Amino acid sequence: MTLNETVQLDRSDVEAARHVVAEHLRRTPLLDVDVPTPDGPVRTTLKLESLQVTGSFKPRGAINSLITSGAMAVVACSGGNHGLAVAWAAARLGRTATIVVPASAAQTKVAAMRRAGAEVVQHGDVPAEAFAVADRLVAERGWPLVHPYDQPATIAGQGTLGLELLDDAPAVTHWLIAVGGGGFPAGVALAVGGRAEVVPVEPQGCPSLHEAQRAGHPVPTGAEGIARTSLGPPSLGVLPWQVLRSRVGPCRLVTDAQIVAAQQWLWQEVRVVAEPGGATALAALMCGAWAPPLDARVGTVVCGGNADALPA
Amino acid sequence: MTLNETVQLDRSDVEAARHVVAEHLRRTPLLDVDVPTPDGPVRTTLKLESLQVTGSFKPRGAINSLITSGAMAVVACSGGNHGLAVAWAAARLGRTATIVVPASAAQTKVAAMRRAGAEVVQHGDVPAEAFAVADRLVAERGWPLVHPYDQPATIAGQGTLGLELLDDAPAVTHWLIAVGGGGFPAGVALAVGGRAEVVPVEPQGCPSLHEAQRAGHPVPTGAEGIARTSLGPPSLGVLPWQVLRSRVGPCRLVTDAQIVAAQQWLWQEVRVVAEPGGATALAALMCGAWAPPLDARVGTVVCGGNADALPA
Repeated sequence: MTLNETVQLDRSDVEAARHVVAEHLRRTPLLDVDVPTPDGPVRTTLKLESLQVTGSFKPRGAINSLITSGAMAVVACSGGNHGLAVAWAAARLGRTATIVVPASAAQTKVAAMRRAGAEVVQHGDVPAEAFAVADRLVAERGWPLVHPYDQPATIAGQGTLGLELLDDAPAVTHWLIAVGGGGFPAGVALAVGGRAEVVPVEPQGCPSLHEAQRAGHPVPTGAEGIARTSLGPPSLGVLPWQVLRSRVGPCRLVTDAQIVAAQQWLWQEVRVVAEPGGATALAALMCGAWAPPLDARVGTVVCGGNADALPA
Repeated sequence: MTLNETVQLDRSDVEAARHVVAEHLRRTPLLDVDVPTPDGPVRTTLKLESLQVTGSFKPRGAINSLITSGAMAVVACSGGNHGLAVAWAAARLGRTATIVVPASAAQTKVAAMRRAGAEVVQHGDVPAEAFAVADRLVAERGWPLVHPYDQPATIAGQGTLGLELLDDAPAVTHWLIAVGGGGFPAGVALAVGGRAEVVPVEPQGCPSLHEAQRAGHPVPTGAEGIARTSLGPPSLGVLPWQVLRSRVGPCRLVTDAQIVAAQQWLWQEVRVVAEPGGATALAALMCGAWAPPLDARVGTVVCGGNADALPA
């Protein structure tokens, strides 16, 4: 994608994706809990997408991309969860996948990709360096790249989670969603638009949407901190930006310490394991970076659970 | 309870308990997954009761007991989860609790009891020794004992989970349930009787129901192995036996290694943390100790998540 291209995406694309992916995925559950916030406990609906196959929302977009593309071999590049999802989707469909991940990716993720039968190439410390390696593989082998966020099939697939939110928690008015490259919040915003608001949240160290909102377009963004392997793209995706720019309000930012506090609370009080990126959206509610308006009914997605250990 | 007493309990007691406890507890979610078994994958509904407040099903019976007894101060004795639940219930209701636990109880559980404001007395290596200390405290202080399984209010409270199974997964025909003192399977059997079958499962090292079924009545039973702090009572409860003897088939036994395999699978494939007792029922399905009959629709309860670390 470049800034001059425009791809039309709407809820019908997400609904079409649901017909493609539903039989392959788990219908992840909801759980209502009381979350501590600076203004007292807030009743909150957790969507436990960390219990999805491969431990994150990523297989929604991955399997939609593989099925709709028809490619028998693909390349993918990600901080871990997207690669894991593509490896799983390829194995499930009897196809071939090569996954490029940064050297800093969690070993649980790399091991799981290899167990699924994928070729794994580890290179560089941040996603930007791995993307360059993936582009070279695409050119050398002629296999398509399954992009983690900047392709229509990825966004439509991730959006299928939003349709489940509407079906299973129709009363929720505000969904806090973590932003990395933007494909996930874009898909969910397409799905729930007009019926619920998506509140975007980023780590201070990976502010790709925050920076895009300041500049008026995606810009190169640093990737620092504990959530960088899952929420630290080189910049917000162009296609996600086309969806998000008119559909969400200002991105809320949280610190690493606030993310850790949300991880600890999820484990100690709910026995849910979230990786840093999976607890980032909840952190904004817990620390007060976002406060629910009067009469809001709050929800958030625990979008990844691929941690190597329990929170201390 | 003695063997000569008989207490009538039926589903109406469980329904009454639900009116008492519902506002205090989480409605824990279900998740459908494909579980590997010797005969291939079996579609299975997991009831994720490990996500209940305090990390197990125990607060159902605890808060029902505290509310219906009206006592302002109580003593409890358990391998950990029941004590944790009584500590939580007392704190929630503004009452006082002293909890006696064996020295082998998980430190996460003891720390959480103290955070809830309970007095914790650690004594002995197995629940039998802790029970004796609790009896002495009851005599000295005149506070009632909240029994972990051998009181009607406990059984009726645990049974509220069974009512949720009927409401949320009416198609399931067989629920695999772990047995310790028997209060939990007894309550669930009262709730689902006539509409679904409870399949009881025990660790080989804690065979209290297995031994009761062989002897025709509860007998003193050893408590060995990795699940002994949660599933190792001195013997099956007399009141649970009165409920279970005519309502469940033969108890299935699983080894510690089979329990560990179930814990590992739950974490690696579902990102659910189960303590040994919480994975015991699933282990029977995975290892083939119980095989579903033709046309069965299978479910199991992941009944505790209070682990100190992720499975290796």
